Amino acid sequence: MESMRNQSSNNAIVRMAAKAKAASMELSLLSTSAKNIALHAMAKALVQRKAYLMKENRKDLNAAQKHNYSKALIDRLTLDIKRIKGMAQCLLDTAKLKDPVGEILNTWKRPNGLVIKKVRVPFGVIGIIYESRPNVTSDCIGLCLKSGNAVILKGGKEAFYSNHAIFSVLKSALKNTKVPVEAVQLVASTDRQAVNILLRQTRYVDLIVPRGGEGLIRFVAEHSRIPVVKHYKGVCHTYVSDKADIDMARSVCFNAKVQRPGVCNAMETMLVNRKVAERFLPPVIGDLRAAGVEIRGCPRTRRIIGAGIKPATEKDWTEEYLDLILSVKVVDNLQDAIEHINTYGSHHSDAIVTKDNKEAGQFLKAVDSACLYANASTRFTDGYEFGFGAEVGISTDKLHVRGPMGLEGLTTYKYQVYGKGQIRK
Amino acid sequence: MESMRNQSSNNAIVRMAAKAKAASMELSLLSTSAKNIALHAMAKALVQRKAYLMKENRKDLNAAQKHNYSKALIDRLTLDIKRIKGMAQCLLDTAKLKDPVGEILNTWKRPNGLVIKKVRVPFGVIGIIYESRPNVTSDCIGLCLKSGNAVILKGGKEAFYSNHAIFSVLKSALKNTKVPVEAVQLVASTDRQAVNILLRQTRYVDLIVPRGGEGLIRFVAEHSRIPVVKHYKGVCHTYVSDKADIDMARSVCFNAKVQRPGVCNAMETMLVNRKVAERFLPPVIGDLRAAGVEIRGCPRTRRIIGAGIKPATEKDWTEEYLDLILSVKVVDNLQDAIEHINTYGSHHSDAIVTKDNKEAGQFLKAVDSACLYANASTRFTDGYEFGFGAEVGISTDKLHVRGPMGLEGLTTYKYQVYGKGQIRK
Repeated sequence: MESMRNQSSNNAIVRMAAKAKAASMELSLLSTSAKNIALHAMAKALVQRKAYLMKENRKDLNAAQKHNYSKALIDRLTLDIKRIKGMAQCLLDTAKLKDPVGEILNTWKRPNGLVIKKVRVPFGVIGIIYESRPNVTSDCIGLCLKSGNAVILKGGKEAFYSNHAIFSVLKSALKNTKVPVEAVQLVASTDRQAVNILLRQTRYVDLIVPRGGEGLIRFVAEHSRIPVVKHYKGVCHTYVSDKADIDMARSVCFNAKVQRPGVCNAMETMLVNRKVAERFLPPVIGDLRAAGVEIRGCPRTRRIIGAGIKPATEKDWTEEYLDLILSVKVVDNLQDAIEHINTYGSHHSDAIVTKDNKEAGQFLKAVDSACLYANASTRFTDGYEFGFGAEVGISTDKLHVRGPMGLEGLTTYKYQVYGKGQIRK
Repeated sequence: MESMRNQSSNNAIVRMAAKAKAASMELSLLSTSAKNIALHAMAKALVQRKAYLMKENRKDLNAAQKHNYSKALIDRLTLDIKRIKGMAQCLLDTAKLKDPVGEILNTWKRPNGLVIKKVRVPFGVIGIIYESRPNVTSDCIGLCLKSGNAVILKGGKEAFYSNHAIFSVLKSALKNTKVPVEAVQLVASTDRQAVNILLRQTRYVDLIVPRGGEGLIRFVAEHSRIPVVKHYKGVCHTYVSDKADIDMARSVCFNAKVQRPGVCNAMETMLVNRKVAERFLPPVIGDLRAAGVEIRGCPRTRRIIGAGIKPATEKDWTEEYLDLILSVKVVDNLQDAIEHINTYGSHHSDAIVTKDNKEAGQFLKAVDSACLYANASTRFTDGYEFGFGAEVGISTDKLHVRGPMGLEGLTTYKYQVYGKGQIRK
């Protein structure tokens, strides 16, 4: 019985993927204005149906309270009028972004007269697997449609009712637009078996984007037969050079750690050149501790600051705290800082503070990370801050898209070759 | 005992990958001229050591004869003076290509004064898994070094002695250059277990490129934890529209099928609009049959040409013959041709022959393949023909690189952000 039910649920996912693929072909040919009209219709529907959305969201909140979920999780789950308006605004903002589809990336002529154009095109079908925040449902549908992609969403069970409500409102809104309603799909089942089936639909699904904790992302990366764009974690560093403006270093490090510690672009390890350690560490650690940050220091850091600080262990150098905790290491020189980051880091976002442009250039060239900063906070790694308008995530992969993944990251390209009957000799 | 030997061979691959990663860091910082000097030294060494290379190649040829390998395979395996000079020339040509590393892909300034540069950088370590042709060893080392990447090669057992000889000559040639010798590595073992271990070195290897038959590529794609760039097969189409120049269509179709049938960009299926079928099919099929091509036709094709032609079965539409065989289908219109290609094709290279620019544009937009041609032979899908100088392969993937994969395809990018102390608010 169980296995029959599984079988039928498996078939449902295969059918859903096939429908999304067929819809994606239509969607890929739509004009920018047809896609923008659909985004406006969806935004309007969200606001009109706010009572229904909040009623469904209440079911998730009741279940969350019953399961004694954390306050932070319940806050992330909650949909109020302000948040619903925020989701609608995000769709309207996405409508304003430049359509990446059809952009000619390069064009050249060969000696035999062939004209080759490299043209930006949608992927086809994108699968997004995510946890808790219901606004992801709406944001991702908007970004995928604008970039000409059909989307299959698989949300977490905590937001089951909210995701279904948002999805059904958005899907209904598509009915009077040129966007085929089957271009948006939501996996009804909440179990991991459904994810497993989805991850094998190489014929229909072109790209998988997992959003959530490291456990979810590792599961997806290990089981997917479809290419995955992801980052596991953000172990971000700031290196304070002996040539740093000390006041700037103090402000940049404080911001990178404290402004929002629970996100992937927050600093987890601070590296300090030994020549400035005595001058720099006491004031910055004073600031950080006053803001409630727990410091874990290398032996040299502890010699300077005192034994009131916990010792950092080997494990601390690879840890993504996502919290008010910071590991601190005194290093001998630029080279040691680069080696530490390339060895222990997560290739996400790393910064140097220095007044020496040559040294900054060496750091930015040698560190193998998606986003490198000279004299700025690592907190700027973000689609909005980069000027991409919005993002579906951050990639620490090296293929295709690295760093914030906006509309452009949701497209690929094709070569279009124009001939006059050329044949190969 | 067996398992102990496996264990030690596994460890050898992990150590090799770690060394390649360390060398890749050095290599990524080298100047263009330092890399070109190394390419010249390698080219010189190949020619100087030609007697040694041919002696080692003899061992592979003897084994191949003993195993009764096909004439075609033995031909591909053979190294003579002309082919050794060809390998050397390829390295010299690679030295002449523009260095992609360090190219600034985009640069912009944010309202807060941050300057963001998107800069082209090497991947790090690239693993190449390939079959038979020994020149791949040399060509791939050249392309990887020029693009700033360390490379780990795993060749097939048929070319064991040849690959080792080429590898050791090239590696020795690096000794007096700035390129670290550990930037090139060859897996000594010839078993698949070695490949399996290599495919799990996500910490050290950034990209895998399999080159060979569909079986090898599927094995690699299924077992790799590292991103793979690949194409399984090339089921390429030419659609002859009712608006085609019939003479051009005849020449383009003949070229696409006959000029070199054993390669991935050769045509496997010809689609013909029903309005021109009576006029077009008899002459072109006459040409093709005279060149020894076996035709497998749909019912309408057979009605026109006669029962001397084999019927095409459903399986023919997805078959990569790599031989003088062609399936032919008469279709009602452009839309049916597009649907046939998107359903049965391999997303590699597809062409339309038409005088109508609007129709050509519709075809090039709607067909979901890496390379689309209007009025030219599909045989042009090739790094050299595209003007990339050389290629490590062709990609039908949608992430990162699509179509011919040259030096640019061997690089990724990073964002370098220049600030004046900006912090996130």
